[in-house]
Amino acid sequence: MPYVNIRVTNEGVSQAQKLELIEGVTDLLQRVLNKNPATTFVIIDEVEMDNWGVNRQNVTTLRQREAAARDAT
Amino acid sequence: MPYVNIRVTNEGVSQAQKLELIEGVTDLLQRVLNKNPATTFVIIDEVEMDNWGVNRQNVTTLRQREAAARDAT
Amino acid sequence: MPYVNIRVTNEGVSQAQKLELIEGVTDLLQRVLNKNPATTFVIIDEVEMDNWGVNRQNVTTLRQREAAARDAT
Amino acid sequence: MPYVNIRVTNEGVSQAQKLELIEGVTDLLQRVLNKNPATTFVIIDEVEMDNWGVNRQNVTTLRQREAAARDAT
Amino acid sequence: MPYVNIRVTNEGVSQAQKLELIEGVTDLLQRVLNKNPATTFVIIDEVEMDNWGVNRQNVTTLRQREAAARDAT
Amino acid sequence: MPYVNIRVTNEGVSQAQKLELIEGVTDLLQRVLNKNPATTFVIIDEVEMDNWGVNRQNVTTLRQREAAARDAT
Repeated sequence: MPYVNIRVTNEGVSQAQKLELIEGVTDLLQRVLNKNPATTFVIIDEVEMDNWGVNRQNVTTLRQREAAARDAT
Repeated sequence: MPYVNIRVTNEGVSQAQKLELIEGVTDLLQRVLNKNPATTFVIIDEVEMDNWGVNRQNVTTLRQREAAARDAT
Repeated sequence: MPYVNIRVTNEGVSQAQKLELIEGVTDLLQRVLNKNPATTFVIIDEVEMDNWGVNRQNVTTLRQREAAARDAT
Repeated sequence: MPYVNIRVTNEGVSQAQKLELIEGVTDLLQRVLNKNPATTFVIIDEVEMDNWGVNRQNVTTLRQREAAARDAT
Repeated sequence: MPYVNIRVTNEGVSQAQKLELIEGVTDLLQRVLNKNPATTFVIIDEVEMDNWGVNRQNVTTLRQREAAARDAT
Repeated sequence: MPYVNIRVTNEGVSQAQKLELIEGVTDLLQRVLNKNPATTFVIIDEVEMDNWGVNRQNVTTLRQREAAARDAT
């Protein structure tokens, strides 16, 4: 009966990748805790980059800085 | 002061249905626990069917299989 | 397949009251959205009063003030 | 390592306001609990007004009533 | 930067099992979405069986019925 | 009407610190978004260190390694 909520930034997660996450988490819970897949819920929230903060900045800015750092090398 | 979060798949829940959920949950908490409706929050999250997994598949696929099973009968 | 999370302060909710909440929410989702009870999850979180804030104070203080106001009348 | 989830109604929160929330919460956790900003997550959910209930009504209706009350004065 | 919340019933999950869940989810997110383990949070909530409802009953009752069904065979 | 959920590891957060978090978040939301403190909820979850994973390890282990590193200097 587990409920799993995966929150990631909204950066183009494909339907196939979402399915891999759903399968992977369900299998993990069955393997480790013997949980029944039929009642294992996995819910993926895709959060806008402006709405996700880490290290006092939003991810929009973080990604720009990462890109600039790559371009500079 | 309760906080209630209802998560359902995004399959065309109408404004009227949402209001029924809000009223129903608020009344339930008042009846069972004597909670004040003025500070009862009910928040409904509508989750895309690709983002909701159960039984190792997403709900998009689940709904297609249910429809195919109905068509086959 | 709904997932419902009810958060209330930890002030002596009985097992019977919890069951009433579980039944009430499940029935509501079946009635309004035709959701299957077999895959409706209802999870109740009981939160310590020191850990719940409203109106810039915790509920511990709020309850003391409510009791004092009642005693004063 | 804190995780903070801020849920507000979707009523035009600007990117600058979101950043102020991210900075403010991160600074607060550093000041009060000495938490490292590098691993402090702040996630803002903007919830549609039809999906947020308080006092047995949705916020759409609540805002209309507030506006009508202002117009009446 | 993913945040993953795993909610299971409180039925004796060991420290080693929790660690398997943390490792498994972190590896999955790195493999599927190339997420950095250093900023992947996995939080496990253990919920009392009286507080988890499915199919209009709490898990306490569900487990008793499962045990009775096993004893009857 | 904001709802804010702060999740931190359970490492001895005092009642006074919790109150500082409640006041700080409530004031921030009033200042940035003009939200009414009377309907601002702040809920603090204290999560056991075995149940919080980051960088593929639980916080229990992380804290032991941090302490060992400090002792080694």
